[in-house]
Amino acid sequence: MTAARVHTLDPARPRAQGLVFDAAGKIVAVGTRGDLLHLYPNARHIDFGEATLVPGLIDAHAHVFELGINQLQADLSGTRSKSEALQRLREFARALPPGQWLIGHGWDQNDWPDARFPEAADLDAEFPERPVWLQRIDGHAGWANSAAMRAAGRELGGDWQPDGGRIVRDDKGRATGVFIDDAMALLERARPPLPPAAVEQALSLGMQAAVRHGLTGVHDAGVDLPTLRAYRRLAGRKQLPLRITAFAAGDGDALESLCRDGLYQHPSGRLKMRTVKLYADGALGSRGAALLQDYSDERGNRGLLRMSPEAMAKAIAKAERCGVQVATHAIGDRGNREVLDLYAQALGENATTRDHRWRIEHAQILAPQDLPRLAALHAIASMQPTHATSDMPWAEDRLGPVRIDGAYAWRQLRDSGARLALGSDFPVESVDPRLGLFAAATRTDATGKPLGGWHPQEKLTAYEALRGFTLDAAYAGFAENEVGSLAVGKRADFVVFEQDPLAVEPQRLRELTLLGTYVDGAPVWQREPAQR
Amino acid sequence: MTAARVHTLDPARPRAQGLVFDAAGKIVAVGTRGDLLHLYPNARHIDFGEATLVPGLIDAHAHVFELGINQLQADLSGTRSKSEALQRLREFARALPPGQWLIGHGWDQNDWPDARFPEAADLDAEFPERPVWLQRIDGHAGWANSAAMRAAGRELGGDWQPDGGRIVRDDKGRATGVFIDDAMALLERARPPLPPAAVEQALSLGMQAAVRHGLTGVHDAGVDLPTLRAYRRLAGRKQLPLRITAFAAGDGDALESLCRDGLYQHPSGRLKMRTVKLYADGALGSRGAALLQDYSDERGNRGLLRMSPEAMAKAIAKAERCGVQVATHAIGDRGNREVLDLYAQALGENATTRDHRWRIEHAQILAPQDLPRLAALHAIASMQPTHATSDMPWAEDRLGPVRIDGAYAWRQLRDSGARLALGSDFPVESVDPRLGLFAAATRTDATGKPLGGWHPQEKLTAYEALRGFTLDAAYAGFAENEVGSLAVGKRADFVVFEQDPLAVEPQRLRELTLLGTYVDGAPVWQREPAQR
Repeated sequence: MTAARVHTLDPARPRAQGLVFDAAGKIVAVGTRGDLLHLYPNARHIDFGEATLVPGLIDAHAHVFELGINQLQADLSGTRSKSEALQRLREFARALPPGQWLIGHGWDQNDWPDARFPEAADLDAEFPERPVWLQRIDGHAGWANSAAMRAAGRELGGDWQPDGGRIVRDDKGRATGVFIDDAMALLERARPPLPPAAVEQALSLGMQAAVRHGLTGVHDAGVDLPTLRAYRRLAGRKQLPLRITAFAAGDGDALESLCRDGLYQHPSGRLKMRTVKLYADGALGSRGAALLQDYSDERGNRGLLRMSPEAMAKAIAKAERCGVQVATHAIGDRGNREVLDLYAQALGENATTRDHRWRIEHAQILAPQDLPRLAALHAIASMQPTHATSDMPWAEDRLGPVRIDGAYAWRQLRDSGARLALGSDFPVESVDPRLGLFAAATRTDATGKPLGGWHPQEKLTAYEALRGFTLDAAYAGFAENEVGSLAVGKRADFVVFEQDPLAVEPQRLRELTLLGTYVDGAPVWQREPAQR
Repeated sequence: MTAARVHTLDPARPRAQGLVFDAAGKIVAVGTRGDLLHLYPNARHIDFGEATLVPGLIDAHAHVFELGINQLQADLSGTRSKSEALQRLREFARALPPGQWLIGHGWDQNDWPDARFPEAADLDAEFPERPVWLQRIDGHAGWANSAAMRAAGRELGGDWQPDGGRIVRDDKGRATGVFIDDAMALLERARPPLPPAAVEQALSLGMQAAVRHGLTGVHDAGVDLPTLRAYRRLAGRKQLPLRITAFAAGDGDALESLCRDGLYQHPSGRLKMRTVKLYADGALGSRGAALLQDYSDERGNRGLLRMSPEAMAKAIAKAERCGVQVATHAIGDRGNREVLDLYAQALGENATTRDHRWRIEHAQILAPQDLPRLAALHAIASMQPTHATSDMPWAEDRLGPVRIDGAYAWRQLRDSGARLALGSDFPVESVDPRLGLFAAATRTDATGKPLGGWHPQEKLTAYEALRGFTLDAAYAGFAENEVGSLAVGKRADFVVFEQDPLAVEPQRLRELTLLGTYVDGAPVWQREPAQR
């Protein structure tokens, strides 16, 4: 393989013009065009002409099943009003058998004129009998109609609240139809289960979308044992087009199996599980993120912890005992502080002496004094650049002008010495990593607003962003000796762009043209010649 | 003082709209416009309208005397040919009394058509009797005419070479007229000394140029005792418009005085000396930088060490004994390795336990395995972004395609955990720090070439560049508790730009409009209202 340039991400040899790999997909040489042609005259030679090769992109935090299943469900993302959402639901329901649940996702009340949570009543006129259950864009809230609430089989009104969640109620104590974080389970439990073949189908659809956008690896942030089994079946049939680093979902069946059977790795190198994903709190959009002080736009509300510190400590201790990497979702400054306290307590002196690589997923809002604690604990900040640009229209409303300075603080965290692994959190955001590179390097929306970027002191360079999506994401998955950069002995996972992502102006990063995605040296996606 | 925005560089509060300081120039409040007007209703209020305030810029490596004296000497910088240089010399000589030395500076044979060193004969026709001595742009070579060589008073031909320097000779062993690094002393010694008033005049001219471009501090990288005394006289007359952090020049009189009398600080806070500047090697342009292998464009030449490792070890040990910070010039990969070895040896375990802040000046070309050693030794990389963009047309000729990857490696050094203090090395480069911010964030020349930047993986963001010229430069001068960011208790050293340097596109950074420079709260330079 040769090209105009290769950005290897290998600090010892950042640029090259090509690489040679063996039949097993292992890199045996990286160098100039001339050197490679001279040393390997008989190798099959593919020349990408004026294109640029970079290591395969790794999304360090995403949800493959949810991305795939979304293609099988109603999609409300991008709707500009509640009535537009209802219109989409009407169309989708036409193909459904009577009585079957209408499942959808992707709504965001912040995109609608009144920016208020919708209600069951909004759905009931159109769907009086068919249960309807619609997840919010961030997966941290759900919107049900009355038929779905009846199917829950218990009284949802009153003044009680479930642990780690919240039922939104009116002033008479009646559930209005929105269920936040762990309250969502009240409705989810009532849904008929998905057949195993549908799980495989959803995973396959998710992975196909990933490789189509240049991903050669995904850290799947929360997988239960049935889903891991589906992945294993796909791996056994050689149907994993990219590398999946699965996190066991919470203190459940998958963590139990890691403790009982040991860390898991499929012989193909395409699937592993050695991590547990825990949840400290909810999300900022739905005001479920745990804050140290009240939300600036809702007095008296400080969000919520989804696990008690005691339950988290127990799960962390179990992971630590089993040699399992811990990756904990934390959005709010209180959520992050709880996680840092718990990590410090569980790791003690091992924090700096053992290669634990514990992660904070999102690390979205930190109190100033907590920012340096990630580096001090050798904890990894697993962050999603597009969250900043999606949330910027309203994040300061939630947080006010002081706390916002510790939010989406990529540069401050990097300066403090923490390692940044970047991802998208798809399907919460787009699966397309070009959008993450763009958001990281510009901190603007697609039209370049605000001018110069939102809190521009936190911007990353294109190189830093690329490193976050390659070498540092690989490190966060204990895989930097296998992938993440292009060097002799590593796997030939790479992508080909028509343009040079390090040479285009940052505002052009979202328009890069992907020509191909290669895993173990083999194309798993290629642009049709007609498109080129 | 209020403005549209203040980038404080204080991570705990990165943005504000104004600051309040007391009569002594100490900041007492930083905050929003509303808060400050409410809390300090009686303070004298200057509003900068739509402008942006940032901390005063600090040039972490420059030469104030040389900048000033250049205004009193012939300036050959920017000449496109030897004949253009001769034309300028002819004009300058018209005002000189007969027999007085013609002193000049700023030539660079790489800017001339044949890119070859000039010779004494080029000058002799025009100046048969008047001694002529012309420093190269980087100060690492000098060009003499025959009259000046006669004044040296010793035979310059033959096959001997002075320690730490090189006399360029033809194939008959005759000196051609160019003297590299320590060989320059053979000519310098012959020049009549400058009167003390001229030293003060040169320093004042240099400092005026500095504040006119937004500098509130300069690390003056090499000052002898007479020059320090000139600074002290100016400080005594309150004629230092900015803060000078002077480095004692080599193992000489100034270091001796630091050891005898202790670290020096003037009560005004405007002048201090607690550092010694040593030289490991020469410069890349004149092939005086010490390389581990031959220059790629001159076989057999590996440059030279200007001090033997033994002499450097002795000077470093002396500094260490006296509590003096060490700052050593190192350009080539061999020069840098020698310095790292010597620092490691001198500091031992103190490297990470003592707050020594030893620096490498330029840290320009490092072998890959040496890049992480700065962070490991807690050594500071004092780098000059404009060197990269000035040298890029020919640096790869000197170094070849492999070594170039360790050259001007800002990002790799930063990623390894080293702190970057940025500067200009004026008058080698322009005193204007906007050019440094621009070079750091674009790695292009003024016309935007090469597209996307030269070795773009090493680019910095505008914020990182600004931090290198403020907070991290302050840290490198043991001054981060006084200056470098705008926070309560620090000095009110700041500059006002019409545009927001963190919001403009990087390619616009060289066109920022400076409105004023403030030190201790008082304006030391302001743009004329007519210019605004």
